[in-house]
Amino acid sequence: MGIGNRESGIGNRETGWGRGKREKGKGKRPSPTLPSFIQRETGIVNRRNPQLSSTDELGMQTALEEARNGSEVGEVPVGAAVIVDGKIISRAHNETISRNDLTQHAELIAIQSALKSLGTDRLENASLYITLEPCAQCAGAIVLARVGRVLFGAYDPKAGMAGSVEDLLRHSKLNHRPEVRGGVFETECGALLKVFFKGRRE
Amino acid sequence: MGIGNRESGIGNRETGWGRGKREKGKGKRPSPTLPSFIQRETGIVNRRNPQLSSTDELGMQTALEEARNGSEVGEVPVGAAVIVDGKIISRAHNETISRNDLTQHAELIAIQSALKSLGTDRLENASLYITLEPCAQCAGAIVLARVGRVLFGAYDPKAGMAGSVEDLLRHSKLNHRPEVRGGVFETECGALLKVFFKGRRE
Repeated sequence: MGIGNRESGIGNRETGWGRGKREKGKGKRPSPTLPSFIQRETGIVNRRNPQLSSTDELGMQTALEEARNGSEVGEVPVGAAVIVDGKIISRAHNETISRNDLTQHAELIAIQSALKSLGTDRLENASLYITLEPCAQCAGAIVLARVGRVLFGAYDPKAGMAGSVEDLLRHSKLNHRPEVRGGVFETECGALLKVFFKGRRE
Repeated sequence: MGIGNRESGIGNRETGWGRGKREKGKGKRPSPTLPSFIQRETGIVNRRNPQLSSTDELGMQTALEEARNGSEVGEVPVGAAVIVDGKIISRAHNETISRNDLTQHAELIAIQSALKSLGTDRLENASLYITLEPCAQCAGAIVLARVGRVLFGAYDPKAGMAGSVEDLLRHSKLNHRPEVRGGVFETECGALLKVFFKGRRE
């Protein structure tokens, strides 16, 4: 099941979050967002994602917000957003539980919704933000809709198709290859999933 | 574009249809369906698909009918059907043109519709019939929805993910692997696409 996939792989990646326990009271991480005067001076918004533009920051924060919204209604906390020219065109969270349909992933819904909103059949100028590496279905939808850029948070070693299991987004034989960046706000994105599944097991 | 994909690859496969021109008036193929008394005696329905059960025959014929329906309204002629216990649960054709959304493939619509009709979140007892090898998105949806069996007609060497480009349906790392059979009614399924695209080029 997709949900199971998304769960058990979390915490195995290079950034090391979730791999070990920190000592209590120690190692509390500083806020990733830098003070606004530093942002203005340096153009750097996020200390862990130094090259992130304010639009990308907005996209990922929107996706994270959606993931949290999903979690509140019992959905696996995965969120997505589509931005064109700095404007949020669509946003969605997983709806696999509410619609009783395991294909209703956040990014598929966000892509279809963006196509509808824009009245276009291609998203070449769009950036898609997802809190989790897309699965085969969603990577396929990204290629079909020719999404220009994809940024995602946590990796999914068990079903991720942007490098973890296969790389369908940069596949030499497919006719569209978006710009891809993974691991953006990885800690925050993965933590949501971790907390959610921990809660379900208890 | 998905459509382009689906077009240009057609005709390159092992059965050889579309690869060369037959001489006029020669080599007209006999109907693939055997006379009913032979069907009763032998249990063989289709001379080119000798092991096809009557349910599978129904599934593929329904998918072909859907592909033709799609073609009539200007859609790329790809059709799909879902059968459970000998009963057609859902059927669909591509709706990429009418919905202006390249993700609206026949088999994705058929899967989502079957899940809704049955009120279930898995299709382990279902057979999915498609006239064309599924792309990444649809192969991913098949794995997510845990479709039990997949039968398809024409291969798609440019985007097919059931063996042509990759094999996501029988991927060792994914957690569901349906039974797969390709090339069923391959000639009929491919011919529809060939005629459609020939018409568009003229």
